[in-house]
Amino acid sequence: MSKVLFKNPYILTMCDGEKVFKKDLLVIDNKIAKIEDNIKEVDKDTKIIDASNTLLMPGFVNAHTHSAMVFSRSSSDNLSLSDWLNNCIFKMEANLTPNYVYNLDKVALLEYLTSGITTFFDMYYFSDSTYQLCREWGFRSNILLCPSAASVNDDEFFKDADELFNKSDDLNSFKFGLHAEYTTNVDDINFVKKLIDKYHLPFSSHVCETKNETEGCKKRHNNLSPIEYFNSFDMFKYGGTLFHCVYLNDNDFKILKEKNISVVTCPGSNGKLASGIAPIKRLVDEGINVAIGTDGAGSNNCLDMFKEMHLLYSFSKIKEEDPCSLKAFDILKMATLNGAKALGLKNLDGIKVGNYADIILIDLLKPNMQPINNLISNLVYSGSKDNIKLTMINGKILYYKNEFLINENISDIYEKAQQISDILNKDNIYKTN
Amino acid sequence: MSKVLFKNPYILTMCDGEKVFKKDLLVIDNKIAKIEDNIKEVDKDTKIIDASNTLLMPGFVNAHTHSAMVFSRSSSDNLSLSDWLNNCIFKMEANLTPNYVYNLDKVALLEYLTSGITTFFDMYYFSDSTYQLCREWGFRSNILLCPSAASVNDDEFFKDADELFNKSDDLNSFKFGLHAEYTTNVDDINFVKKLIDKYHLPFSSHVCETKNETEGCKKRHNNLSPIEYFNSFDMFKYGGTLFHCVYLNDNDFKILKEKNISVVTCPGSNGKLASGIAPIKRLVDEGINVAIGTDGAGSNNCLDMFKEMHLLYSFSKIKEEDPCSLKAFDILKMATLNGAKALGLKNLDGIKVGNYADIILIDLLKPNMQPINNLISNLVYSGSKDNIKLTMINGKILYYKNEFLINENISDIYEKAQQISDILNKDNIYKTN
Repeated sequence: MSKVLFKNPYILTMCDGEKVFKKDLLVIDNKIAKIEDNIKEVDKDTKIIDASNTLLMPGFVNAHTHSAMVFSRSSSDNLSLSDWLNNCIFKMEANLTPNYVYNLDKVALLEYLTSGITTFFDMYYFSDSTYQLCREWGFRSNILLCPSAASVNDDEFFKDADELFNKSDDLNSFKFGLHAEYTTNVDDINFVKKLIDKYHLPFSSHVCETKNETEGCKKRHNNLSPIEYFNSFDMFKYGGTLFHCVYLNDNDFKILKEKNISVVTCPGSNGKLASGIAPIKRLVDEGINVAIGTDGAGSNNCLDMFKEMHLLYSFSKIKEEDPCSLKAFDILKMATLNGAKALGLKNLDGIKVGNYADIILIDLLKPNMQPINNLISNLVYSGSKDNIKLTMINGKILYYKNEFLINENISDIYEKAQQISDILNKDNIYKTN
Repeated sequence: MSKVLFKNPYILTMCDGEKVFKKDLLVIDNKIAKIEDNIKEVDKDTKIIDASNTLLMPGFVNAHTHSAMVFSRSSSDNLSLSDWLNNCIFKMEANLTPNYVYNLDKVALLEYLTSGITTFFDMYYFSDSTYQLCREWGFRSNILLCPSAASVNDDEFFKDADELFNKSDDLNSFKFGLHAEYTTNVDDINFVKKLIDKYHLPFSSHVCETKNETEGCKKRHNNLSPIEYFNSFDMFKYGGTLFHCVYLNDNDFKILKEKNISVVTCPGSNGKLASGIAPIKRLVDEGINVAIGTDGAGSNNCLDMFKEMHLLYSFSKIKEEDPCSLKAFDILKMATLNGAKALGLKNLDGIKVGNYADIILIDLLKPNMQPINNLISNLVYSGSKDNIKLTMINGKILYYKNEFLINENISDIYEKAQQISDILNKDNIYKTN
């Protein structure tokens, strides 16, 4: 039985509104066991963390990412989505292997830890590799299984979908989806539809990310938007979690509401690829659950929730021409509890007794957190990765005081990822000079 | 004679294009003395910095800020510029004192160090306090002296302008300007004009920050834009450095070019106040020098060059609907050498022998810098404050491995700033809840 006692933090549960209070918090094994004044050391094996001058809160949920794409970080910048995907990324991805994905994922997971990200919703190839790594490190994830968009061998998906899905537990679970309308066909849609119906699962896909894609879909499918097109197959029977949603029509909003679909916005990627600004204010006003994703490192180029939050409210205030268009707490909810909801995570709806201990500590003794006129505004409007003092997932501390508590040599991880990236980028004619 | 030897860094001089090379670099006193392979330890007093796996480059120049405004960080969010200034900030500023400014500035300077900012162009009240602090800590600054915009006692400016100006040296120098067209009058303009003519100085002011301000100026002054209005007084006889420049007409561009004026863009502040997106692409295409400023912490809310760069290219790519609208190196130049040019700094045009040693080290062994497909893209598109390993100003290391090398108790600095902020925010009816 492992025990970790956080002494004297400010606590922001995220499930009691903006309330911040000072209490101790005890984690036993992988759960929050006590939140009380002055909890005494339970026994000599209890690890005590001095959490004075920190804010304890739920970890961030990165609700859309392609972790292993770190190989393409800064290797092909300044391209539009369609050039970037078709002429550059898909060609490199054709050379991926399970071992490459396993080793590239490690760099992404380290980056998540430095950003206070405790759960990610991954969508990529060779998902069993991602699953294996998450098991070994104790990382929480949702993993989306999709038929291949690039010319990657599809066998894993079509043969092993059921087998992988049945490995799901509260730490790592699987879902089914499609890359996008423009990379799929009716056979794939029907295959995924059967799995969704069999297991009563929400459906996920990239949709309405660019104007071209959205208009192209209408031309291909009787004037249906990507969301309307997937809805025509009844893909949202058990809800959904859709990525990007930049270009939405009135009927799309109606479907999102009626089918209880979560939207994952990816402002970093939408900015860097010049895709556009998502209508976040209207989504929030209509009561649709909005979460935040970093997307992959190839189109961002970082996996940093602070930079996503910064861009999200800046984009929204500019788009609405209204400095009040979103409040700091709304944005923080998108980065935490809304993400957990979008992923259907159990026992992760805030800091409370009985919930899983996915916890981060924000260092308040950095100058960007001073003075404290409003803790939440400081965090959202001024925070950065150097405020992340500790990242705990499922009761295990994986990052503390700038050190990774992972039983591996970090330099070796970087070296391996560099070797793989060099191989994959060898014939990339778009390589950024 | 102090000596610091950086062993084995990658060096990005910023004055040799995008070239990155590996050499040692020796600093003697406040200047770069040698850049060579394998420099041997000069003597036993030489401080050796192991700079393996870091990128050595010029420090960032924060070309527009109001440092002491940290008191208003997160104290009055979600307001438009005119509400925020007139109903909130100006009222609090009326209670400022020289001692308050001195103590609040300390928090801002610490934050600059964590962000790799080695020089700032300050515009605020009681500038002698800012000057004193910079002298004590060895911080480089330009300080803009202006007649008061709020109801702060103006005596300092009108009586002591010459005296303060004459204290200028290469580390801390003074310039003259005006807060903005909408807070000035003809007497103030003429007073500043005389000083500018006397000392042959460029002129600075907030201009064209919001649509309302720009349209209002036209109504007040025979259809002249703020830039045209100041130009009608021949304020740009010796050039200028203008802040914000979001709403520009064709003639404004013409004046900016002809008068050799630098533009300081402040995307963080322009986003948070919903002011708009500056036409950076056109400014660059027309050959106008563009630098970057954080603006004050009240309207940002952070003083973080990485977040400014992120917002700048994201805004620009969205505005132009073009993912190639700005390249990573262009943006990095804006954050460094263009800032030095905008401030008229001498011997700070890149990492070269004889130049002042304003140097930062970027930690490449963080996951967001891996793999290295392109160092400059990694830095601009993926960097954050936790990559700043060392900040040196004028040959003195002031920040290293998360520690401030300042001979003061950092907690005391925060406590003092909190006390002052509490006093100034006491009657702030807009205080963010």
